[in-house]
Amino acid sequence: MSPEGKSAPVRMPRAVRIREVGPRDGFQNEPEIIPTELKVELIDALARTGLRRIEVTSFVRATTIPQLADAEEVLARITVPEYVALSVLVANERGLDRALAVRERGRPQAPITQVTVFMSASETHNRKNLNRSVEESLAGLETVLGRARAEGLRCEAVLSTSFGCPYEGAVPPQRVLGLAAALRGAGAQEIALADTTGMANPMQVVALFEDARGRLGAEGWRPAEAEGEAGGELELTAHFHNTRGQGLANVLAALQAGVASFESSFGELGGCPVPAGATGNIASEDLVSMLSEMGIETGVELEALIACARRAQEILGRPLGSHTLVAGPVGTLAGGE
Amino acid sequence: MSPEGKSAPVRMPRAVRIREVGPRDGFQNEPEIIPTELKVELIDALARTGLRRIEVTSFVRATTIPQLADAEEVLARITVPEYVALSVLVANERGLDRALAVRERGRPQAPITQVTVFMSASETHNRKNLNRSVEESLAGLETVLGRARAEGLRCEAVLSTSFGCPYEGAVPPQRVLGLAAALRGAGAQEIALADTTGMANPMQVVALFEDARGRLGAEGWRPAEAEGEAGGELELTAHFHNTRGQGLANVLAALQAGVASFESSFGELGGCPVPAGATGNIASEDLVSMLSEMGIETGVELEALIACARRAQEILGRPLGSHTLVAGPVGTLAGGE
Repeated sequence: MSPEGKSAPVRMPRAVRIREVGPRDGFQNEPEIIPTELKVELIDALARTGLRRIEVTSFVRATTIPQLADAEEVLARITVPEYVALSVLVANERGLDRALAVRERGRPQAPITQVTVFMSASETHNRKNLNRSVEESLAGLETVLGRARAEGLRCEAVLSTSFGCPYEGAVPPQRVLGLAAALRGAGAQEIALADTTGMANPMQVVALFEDARGRLGAEGWRPAEAEGEAGGELELTAHFHNTRGQGLANVLAALQAGVASFESSFGELGGCPVPAGATGNIASEDLVSMLSEMGIETGVELEALIACARRAQEILGRPLGSHTLVAGPVGTLAGGE
Repeated sequence: MSPEGKSAPVRMPRAVRIREVGPRDGFQNEPEIIPTELKVELIDALARTGLRRIEVTSFVRATTIPQLADAEEVLARITVPEYVALSVLVANERGLDRALAVRERGRPQAPITQVTVFMSASETHNRKNLNRSVEESLAGLETVLGRARAEGLRCEAVLSTSFGCPYEGAVPPQRVLGLAAALRGAGAQEIALADTTGMANPMQVVALFEDARGRLGAEGWRPAEAEGEAGGELELTAHFHNTRGQGLANVLAALQAGVASFESSFGELGGCPVPAGATGNIASEDLVSMLSEMGIETGVELEALIACARRAQEILGRPLGSHTLVAGPVGTLAGGE
């Protein structure tokens, strides 16, 4: 069954990095605020599945996102292993100030090593989401990134609507890559191209990430790189949604385009459910299941991750969208028939 | 944004063939029997979406599958355009006799042009599903295929558990391809390799379909071939399930391995929900959405297909698993935010 010498050999990385964003992107989107102690329980459990990157919370105004008003308390109470890199989302300098104040406490109370900033590639989405123009957002983030880097924090910039905008339609790749280059220039060591409303298709994913690698000087995966953090060069991350069922197909396309870093959410929590009722982020369990079956290392124990999603489902009291949560890992003995 | 000259150009067919299997595979799996007039309504609507292949029903014992006991009546009442090729599933010679008796009536009452036979590649699944050994099934199907071909019917053979068996685990590719070769030798013009319980991963899909093309003499897609029915050579079809969210990723892998023929089910109806609660077939709307966005022709009007799934959801009175049914086509204006 070896495909060697066949017409279309499929190049794949040996290992990939996964950032779990459910505690921020998922918890933020729940209509009922999850009690702090349950957040802490879930984050502590996620940090023991083998995941090495978790986006734990966000420093935003409590009036804007009351679901994450307990950011400081969550960070003070979680107990995660040293090898897990924790990041927090910050919207502006005020958020960065809070992150820095918390970091002063040091581990284990505030094990933050990274901040994540975000803006949209499309004007209309940025205005609706952040109430400012793309130019204003970029200028603000340049300041935040400069200060964060000076403080020794690792910086990720997420570019929403990189694959299309629900209001404007297609977003020109040169616009996306121009903004990515500006964010890189301002200090971002990692750029995530995000398919915020699930408009990406695999051909587009291959094209945009190959262009991004070329234009931003980001290298594709190499066996040695995938071990842990990438070195000094820019890290390119893919953030896909499963809005039209195509999330993992886009992951496959990104892998082929040299991407070895992904963001996903346990239980398929969160994301941007636009239109209403649609699903958002790809489920971490589905991502880990597919990658493991393909022989690509994630470092994550699938059963442990499924247990986290099951506990979230219990807490939230409704069925979650993750497929592997229901089906179990490949090889799970059939119940029925 | 042109990927020409880049390291990993992605080869894709210009067009693919899709067989809608919901009226058989979906209706058969509903605990409540769908009234005949509603089946007829849905099939007639599906036949006007641009789909050119529909598996409409099955000639099996009414005591085994009461859900499809009205096969003759459905075939007598549907009114589908001439260009839609209708197939029926037959389990044995008795089923073939019924198909032949119905075909005698001629169009429009019984527009059958194809029969589909099936068996499992793994011993345990075949015994549990068909109550006989793989060897016994193969011998029976050889007789059915011989007679069907002699009667001028086009013949498809579906090989279940081609990518893994929920009872036995891995199924050796040489076993799958050996059975496929035997079915081809007995008269099958089309072989579908089916991932009956959603165990396939993209690497395995590429490897198995590339081997199948080599061993069975099936050619991959070429621009001219994808127009309609393949010519005299064997047609290789992929039948994937979305059990662990990986259905469309496997479609992408199959496309790259030269497959241009797929089976799917509107609304994500049916399939083999093992373990209990898991989803089955990939949704036709999700498949058409992804392919269309990739610039691959399907001939199907996505909005019309979504309308069929919406009507099925209304009739069944529960939310169906299809993602695009909820989200709408790419470009659907955001409702929320």
